[in-house]
This record gives sequence, structure tokens and C-alpha cells, in this order.
Amino acid sequence: MNLRTAATGPVAPRRPARLNPAPSARFDPGSFLGAWQERNAEATIPHCVTNLETSGVLDNFRRLGDAGNDADFRGFWFADSDLYKTVEAIGWEIGRSGTDRWSKLLTETADLLESVQQPDGYLNTYVQGTEGEQPFARPERTHELYSAGHLLQAAVALHRGGGDDRFLAVARRFADLVVRTPPPIDGHPEVETALVELYRETGEPAYLRAAELQVESRGHGTLEPGRFGSVYYQDHLPVREATEALGHAVRQLYLAAGVTDLYLENGDETLLTAMEALWDSAFGTKLYLTGGHGSRHRDEAYGDPYELPPDRAYAETCASVAAVQWSWRMLLATGATRYAEEMERALLNTIAASTSESGTAFFYSNPLQLRTGHDGSGEDAPAERLGWYRCACCPPNLARLLASLHGYAATTDALGLQLHLLSAGTYAGPSMTATVETGYPFDGDIAVTVSGSGALAIRVPSWAAGATATVAGGEIVAPPAPGDYLRVSCGAGAVVRLSLPMTPRLVHADERVDAVRGCVAVVRGPVVYCVEQADLPDGVLVEQLRLDPAADIEPGDGVRLRLTGFARRPGPSLYGLAPGNTDTPLTFTAIPYHSWANRGPGAMRVWLPIP
Amino acid sequence: MNLRTAATGPVAPRRPARLNPAPSARFDPGSFLGAWQERNAEATIPHCVTNLETSGVLDNFRRLGDAGNDADFRGFWFADSDLYKTVEAIGWEIGRSGTDRWSKLLTETADLLESVQQPDGYLNTYVQGTEGEQPFARPERTHELYSAGHLLQAAVALHRGGGDDRFLAVARRFADLVVRTPPPIDGHPEVETALVELYRETGEPAYLRAAELQVESRGHGTLEPGRFGSVYYQDHLPVREATEALGHAVRQLYLAAGVTDLYLENGDETLLTAMEALWDSAFGTKLYLTGGHGSRHRDEAYGDPYELPPDRAYAETCASVAAVQWSWRMLLATGATRYAEEMERALLNTIAASTSESGTAFFYSNPLQLRTGHDGSGEDAPAERLGWYRCACCPPNLARLLASLHGYAATTDALGLQLHLLSAGTYAGPSMTATVETGYPFDGDIAVTVSGSGALAIRVPSWAAGATATVAGGEIVAPPAPGDYLRVSCGAGAVVRLSLPMTPRLVHADERVDAVRGCVAVVRGPVVYCVEQADLPDGVLVEQLRLDPAADIEPGDGVRLRLTGFARRPGPSLYGLAPGNTDTPLTFTAIPYHSWANRGPGAMRVWLPIP
Repeated sequence: MNLRTAATGPVAPRRPARLNPAPSARFDPGSFLGAWQERNAEATIPHCVTNLETSGVLDNFRRLGDAGNDADFRGFWFADSDLYKTVEAIGWEIGRSGTDRWSKLLTETADLLESVQQPDGYLNTYVQGTEGEQPFARPERTHELYSAGHLLQAAVALHRGGGDDRFLAVARRFADLVVRTPPPIDGHPEVETALVELYRETGEPAYLRAAELQVESRGHGTLEPGRFGSVYYQDHLPVREATEALGHAVRQLYLAAGVTDLYLENGDETLLTAMEALWDSAFGTKLYLTGGHGSRHRDEAYGDPYELPPDRAYAETCASVAAVQWSWRMLLATGATRYAEEMERALLNTIAASTSESGTAFFYSNPLQLRTGHDGSGEDAPAERLGWYRCACCPPNLARLLASLHGYAATTDALGLQLHLLSAGTYAGPSMTATVETGYPFDGDIAVTVSGSGALAIRVPSWAAGATATVAGGEIVAPPAPGDYLRVSCGAGAVVRLSLPMTPRLVHADERVDAVRGCVAVVRGPVVYCVEQADLPDGVLVEQLRLDPAADIEPGDGVRLRLTGFARRPGPSLYGLAPGNTDTPLTFTAIPYHSWANRGPGAMRVWLPIP
Repeated sequence: MNLRTAATGPVAPRRPARLNPAPSARFDPGSFLGAWQERNAEATIPHCVTNLETSGVLDNFRRLGDAGNDADFRGFWFADSDLYKTVEAIGWEIGRSGTDRWSKLLTETADLLESVQQPDGYLNTYVQGTEGEQPFARPERTHELYSAGHLLQAAVALHRGGGDDRFLAVARRFADLVVRTPPPIDGHPEVETALVELYRETGEPAYLRAAELQVESRGHGTLEPGRFGSVYYQDHLPVREATEALGHAVRQLYLAAGVTDLYLENGDETLLTAMEALWDSAFGTKLYLTGGHGSRHRDEAYGDPYELPPDRAYAETCASVAAVQWSWRMLLATGATRYAEEMERALLNTIAASTSESGTAFFYSNPLQLRTGHDGSGEDAPAERLGWYRCACCPPNLARLLASLHGYAATTDALGLQLHLLSAGTYAGPSMTATVETGYPFDGDIAVTVSGSGALAIRVPSWAAGATATVAGGEIVAPPAPGDYLRVSCGAGAVVRLSLPMTPRLVHADERVDAVRGCVAVVRGPVVYCVEQADLPDGVLVEQLRLDPAADIEPGDGVRLRLTGFARRPGPSLYGLAPGNTDTPLTFTAIPYHSWANRGPGAMRVWLPIP
């Protein structure tokens, strides 16, 4: 069986990787991830489609095809990418559900792209429609390759998901231009991973070489440094030397995904070594507990090591989407469970929190604390999710990730099948199919029924000390070890039961994370909890809470938890000698961080002070 | 004796205030503040003058007077203000020392201003020299009234300090234009306080009314909100309702100074009430221990209450300069010592730290922590002071504050003289002159010899519990109470000795200042201390330090201190269960925060964790 052509999700390596995406995977509609995919299809994608119209993104294309139309370009110069990401989401959704709901939109969009694309393959409605702009003349700003990368990814998704050829033809014409006349590197990485994916989908090696040229050309200071310096767009050091996560977080993570894609196809181990070092920097010194990346609002950037303020966390939704994409590639490259664990951390916390229960409102930045008295009047740090943003990169990015999420769940290798996301669902490898029944991530009991036979590996999270497993119809090859796999040799009809300990635990940050010193976070399984003002008694503010770390954490309603601690009355002055505070005993409710801000604006915090 | 005309420093109320600036004041050259003024005159002002030339500020004027000169405008659109602030510094310096060092520069500058100023009084080299710009057409951005305000203040300083009439005439022509054709409010407050000062200097009530119109017109959302919203320039609420410190910190504080100036002259108590509430917000919930204002780099703005990260403190130098100016006005309005104490906090910590020992390099932002591994490559958060900035607002702002600083030291009222800054020096009221001998701020013994007679009040800092006083030749009316005054009825030749306790103390922040939870700061008298990497033994990083709060703090070399604590080895992971850290006993040196970063780049922290 050809693993590559069978894959229906993102990343289909031509050169066999350490692990390869499972040829088929689906989540149960009732599972946490499956229900989320349904909401994405029913609410989020349609919401994005509506906003493509109202925000002017489609009109930006239409005005170019219409000589009598002198409407102004609307939105940011990379607004085309909103359309491409939405189309990509639709492509994956067609592959997932076979929907034809957006056939008309796709036809109209293909017509538009074909009419607007220049004979040489160039396509960018901002540059084409703006007096004085020239293609690739201002790569720091105009993001043409960034937008084109999303065009390529949309075409790949539509082709993989639904067999569409028209978008692929448009994408190839642009990529052929890039091959023929290599443009300078773009201020915003993204085309690298897209070119590799287009190579995978078409088999055209020139696209892989074009990706290689983009990667190797970065880091030599060829972009104008601008207000935030070369580091802002990772142009300060070549990728093999740039092993500290720095600059704009989304750019850093997209670039890392592209470099890892390149490694997956060209096997250059120096690239993988650099990516592993970069990973240690990003995930070992600059990661939020919730899977967010980026500590600074000013330049949407990584901060210094251990600079992780919960209140001013930028933690852009797109950065966590990019982190999942990079992690997936690192997982395929190495097979190490830590990459899947970080996918899960980001998914179930920052990314899940970024979308409202309705599926139609979104956070752009995802703080771990909102203070009483917060001024949430701007788009920068609103107290509630907004329906759309002037810079609308996040909503369609969520849509495309969610529509393809089942593609990140399981892998295969020569011996069998590996399960990474632990969701209820069905996952097929070449010789075996695994049906997973579980209430995970809220329940730790995971039952896997196998048809066919072979080696089954189930990821065991690093927090799951004390995990146990039983097997009927097979043999445990490696017992469940935290941060590794439960490995089972399965006969036909084998049933594997893995039990993960779900007792809530108190997590401490490294001593160098000054911003949360003296605090702990409540985490249950992979789910980070928070406390919201809405759950506190009158007269007690979130800022007054103190958690008693010795007290038991009790179950609350549904997935809620009941915590025990104190309400502290603050001292009289901003700065003084030893505080003489008064504590009142209190029990209070914690909710999953991913469900915060669904009851109106109000204070919230993940990290809770201990007395 | 006419108090107003005798005053030689900033703010000379026409309507007698609760306190009025002392008619004459000077610091001993050997005192901390006096030596600083000397360095300002010898190094900082000349450095500013040199940079006016090299940065193109003077050329911006010259090119307008020269038809054959087609040079581009250089710098930011408010670059004219760099010249005006430098001239203001020179004006105060002439008043202080009688120097004629800059006579030629002043003559050339007056020639330039007269040649460039339009017949209607308008003057702004950016707008006048830029195709398509119209006066006051884009008040959000072009800062014409901001720059003009600095012109007015320069003219007042030169007139008060040296009797110069030419700058005053230019300033009046601009102010007359503002009176004749009131422009919209400016995106950057500053003209309000300037117009009031020009009224004081000239007696022209139309300038006071123009200031009133500017103040009353703000807060009605007339400025285009822009990227950061109306709140960025305090246009979100009228000044009587805008009692939370919000938006760009320098703008907020300049506006507050202007509103307080207006109150001082028009006696509208509703303005003072609003300013007192605003004060409580700024200084009670948003103030750094070092006297810095502004928690956010993104928009150089105040954060939410208690959002005070030490590492990402913006704490712009100009904000603390503005805070001193506002505090001085509040002190004159009310007589309350807390305003003088905040002047002192800002001066001896943030403002003193902002300038290198050489007087020629400057911090724009003044963090309370610099991490190991900090990327200090940008102007935004450099690891060392820079000689100049693209936005060079701070250096000449320091120069003008320092040249006039003696004017902030003492006040008079109907009964006598009040001493606020406690520096060695000589301060004269209408009926008495006080000669102060002290090594303050490093020594707590303050001896005051009085000639003449009357009521002497000496500010007693709020931290000075246990202060004692003796008097020869007079009578103690009120003993030294922290946060109040020592009040003495002095006969001729009276000698008053005040002794302030200078034992180092450990300061805690309010429990809601999450960013420094579990930490203390070492403070001695009014001087905040910090620890620098340069003082630690090899192999111990600043991030590893823990202070033992029970251990004695010992004197070190000079003004240094020796602290006792531990070096902690961090745990193995970014997020984990209860940390199992290893501590090694250690003694280490602390230095005054104001002298940090004079030994090359390196990590630093003010707030020290306790175990």
C-alpha cells in the first residue's frame, strides 16, 4: 500500500519518515475533538465564509477582474490569505465529511483566481491593485510569498481532500514563477512548508528545491531590519545557527515547520539537529503552561527565556496552530512522544480556549490571567472573544486546523499503528485498524479494539505516572511509561485497555518563571484549569484567592473542580514592610481554561497563589 | 516681596498657591543632586547640543530658511521639540549658573526660529516642510501643539533664567495664533502646562484661557482613535471623569501637570479633586518601586491596576520626568508631603538610573530586571544605555529637569520655609534662609542652620519611622512624623538637626502585584537597591539568587550593601510537580539601582526572591 497517496491530512512525506500519517482516521462525533470538528464544520467555517464577504476579501479579487470597479483594497496587505485558509479548511472538510456545501463558492473562487492571476503566475490582490507596488519589491511588508503559501496549501488540501484540479493549477502557476524567478525571502515565513507540501502532492522536485532555496536564503540579513530588527522575521541568523526561539512567534514557528518539512524530504540531519535545539528553546524556556507561544504584545514575539507573564501573555492563536503543525512534523521525523504531548497541550488549552462555545467568536491573544479592572476596549487584549479581527489571521487558521485535525491523530510505521491524540475514533494502519473508546481528555480509561494485527503503540503522557494497562488477545511489549508508549503486540480482535491517572495535580513553574512565583496551576490530565470571577461569591475578587496546596481537590459539576483555600484582604499600600494580610477560608470552583470567557467579561486566572 | 517674579524655576503661580516655590535655592556642588546638576551642565547639555546637529534637528529648521536646500526632513515629526527642550535646559542653566557658554547657539537659534516662523505665528518644521501637510490637520500624529508647548516652555525658561526676549516673542506669536484660531487638541498633551506657564510669565490672561480650552476639549473622542484607541491620548473621557491613569504614560502625566497648573491659576476645585483621584490610580496601583510609570512596551502605556512586570517595565524616563513635574504642582496645590516623596522616589531611582555615570548615555525605558540571555539588540529594551535615540525625547527632557532641579527643592508660605528634597544646599524664603548640611540621600543626618526667623518645615519621609530631631535657638512645633513635616519655630541663627533612620529595609509589594510575588526589594532611605551579575561569583546567575529575609544586611564598599542568602539550582523542567531545588549559602553585593549598567551589559534584578 502506498502510504503517501493514501494520506488525507496535512503532511504526506514522499521520503518515508520515522512515522507516517495514518492512511485513515476519524474521531467519534461525540468525542471532544470530534464534536469540535462538527462545530467547526457547522459554525466556524460558515462564519469565516460570511466574513470573507463582509470584510472585503473577496471584493479585493473582484475589483481586479472588473475594469469599472474602482473600489479600494480593503484590509491588510495579506488579506488574500484569509480566503486561502478558508478554502484550505473547506478542502480538508470535504476530505473529512464529503460535504458539497461550498461547491458554488469554490467554483466562483476558482473563476476569480484564474481571472486575476497574471499570465506569469503572479497573484496578489494588494500588489496588483495598488498604484506604485511591484511584485516582491517590499518583501518585509507585502507578504506575497506568505499569501501564496496559503494558496498552495489550499490547493493541496482541495486536491487531497476532494480531487480539485483548478486550484492546484493556479498554485502550480505561482510556484512555477517562484521556481523560474526566485523572489527574495518573505518577511513572513510560510511558503517553505507550502512548497514542500506542493512537491509532495505533485511530485515536482523543483518545488522542493524552491523551498530549500527559501530556507537557505534566510538569516543573512537581506530583509530591511525595520522597527523590530532582523530577528523579528528570523533573518538574523541562518536556520542552523538560529537555535533560540526569537522574534515574531508565528513566523518563527511557521519557519520551523518548513525547515522540518525540508528535513523530512531531503534528510539533511543538520536541519533536524537545529530544529531539536530550537524546540528546546521554545518548549523548554518560552512555553506557556497552556501551550501558548509569545510573551510580548509589542512585536507579537517571544520574550527572553522564562519571561512568561500570564496577564500579558500574547500567546497568539495562530502561534499555537503553528506549534501543532511543527510538532506534528517533529513527531513524524523522530517518533518522540513529547511532540505529540505538546500538540495536545496546545489543542486542549490555548487553541480550544481561542474559540467561543458558539464557534463564531475568537481570541487572537490568549492570556492566562485577566485582571479586575482590565481595559478590554481594544482588539489587542479584549475581555471577550470577538467575531472577527481587522487582522483576521486566526479564525480561518483555526478552521483549517480543525477540519484536518483527525489527520494529526495517528501514525504508522513498518510494524504497525501509533495513537497520539487518544480521542475516541477509528484509526487505520496498513495492517490493522484501531477503534478507540474513551471519554478522554476528561476520563483516563482508554479501550482500543483492534482488527487485523500488528504492533500497536499508544502514547502515554509524561504526567501519567501510575498508568496501567491490560490486554486481551495480545501481549504487552512495553508497559505504559510516562512520556513513552504503551507497546502491544496485537492479535486479531485484541482489546487493549490503558488507564491514565486523572487525579488533579498542582503544577509548579520553573523557579526562573518570575511572573508566577509562589503560584500553582491546577491541571487534570492534559486539561489546565482556571478560576473565573463568575464562580466566586459576592465580595471576593479573583485577585484575593489563595489556594491551600494541602487540601484535596474535589470533583464539581461536570468537568468542574472544587478547590479549597482562602480569600485574602490586601494590605494598605502598594509598597510597604511585611504585609499583615487577613485570610478568610473559602472553597471555590475551577473550570477548564478552554471554556473561560463564555459567561461575559470578568477576571480570570490560571496560576493561583499559595499562601 | 513678590513671590512670583522672584521664582527662578518651573511653575511660578500668579494666584498664590498653598505653597509657592522658594525665591532662591541652590544645591551644594558636592551634594548628590548638586553634583548631578554639574554633570548635566558639563556633559549632558553639551551632548544634547551636539546631537541636535548630528541628528538633523537644526537642519530641519535651516532647510526651510534656505530656498536652495532640498534636504529631507529628518527624525520624527516632533523633532523640533528636541531643540526646544535643549534650549529650555540652557535657559534654566543660565538662571542657575549664569553661564554664557551657549550664547552663540541661542542667537543662531533665535535667528532660525524668526526666519522660519510664519507671519501668522505658526512654526513646525515637519508640517511646513512636508508636501501635503497642513497645519493642525492631523492632530493625532503631527504633535504641533506638543512641539509648540516645548517652544513656549523654552521661551519661559530663557526669559526667567536669563531675561531673553527673542524666544519669548516667537513663543507669544505662536500662542497668539492659538488664541486667535484655536486648533483641535493635540494627540500629545503638553501645550496645556506650557500655555499656563506663558500666562504666568507674561500676565496675558488669553493664554490661560487657551490652556483651559485645550483641557476642556479633551476627552470627547474628537481625535481619530487609531491603533491604540482614544484612551491612548486620554481622549476617552473628560478630565474630571478620567480618574484612572490610562494610555500613553507620558501623555497622561503631562496632561495631569497641565490640569493641575490650570487649577493653580483658576482655582476650580473640581479639577483638583479629579487630579487627586488620578493620582491615587497612578501612584497607588500603577507605580513601580523605582518611581517608573508605564507597564507596557506596546503603546508605552499604563497597564491594568497592579500589572507591574519588572522585566518588561516600560518606565520611560520621560514619564518619570513628567511625574516629577506633576508632583511638584500637586505639592504646591496641597502642601502634602506625599507628592514630594514621589518626586524624590522618581529622581533618585528611575531618573538617576536613566543616565550613565558619564552623563552622555541614556535609558529610554527603565526595567527593574534584566534577564540572563536578554536580547538587547533593539532601542526598545537595550542592555546598556545608548548615546541617542531615533526618538530622542528623553535626553533633553533630563537636561531641562536637571538644570531646573533646585527649583523643586523648597517652598514658602506666609509663615515660612518648607524643605522637600533634603539636599545639602541653601534655600531662601521671604523672611529666612536655610543652609542644609547633609550627606543625604546616603546619610540620614540633616543639619539646618537658619538665618532670619520664622516657621521652618522639613519633610519627613513616610519610611522614616523613628526619626528624631533637636533644635537650638528655636522650638519644635511638631515632632518628626513619617509622611508629615518636622515643624520648627526658628529664631535667628537656629540650628535644627533631623536624624532619619537609614537601616536598610525589605520592602514587599501589594499582594496583587503578581509579577513580584514572593520577592522583596532592598531599600535604604529613599534609594532602591539591585543586584548585578557583575557582582556575583563565577557560576552563579542573578536568576539563582534567593535572599534570606532574616539575615542582617551589612554595609559594603561605599554605598554598597552586603546581602545574605542562597544560590538555587533550578529544577529539571519548565513545568512540573513540587520543585526539589538545591540551595547553596551565599553572600552577595547590592548596589543602588541608579548606578546599574555602568560595567557593561549583564543581568540585574531589583526584586529578590525569598525562599
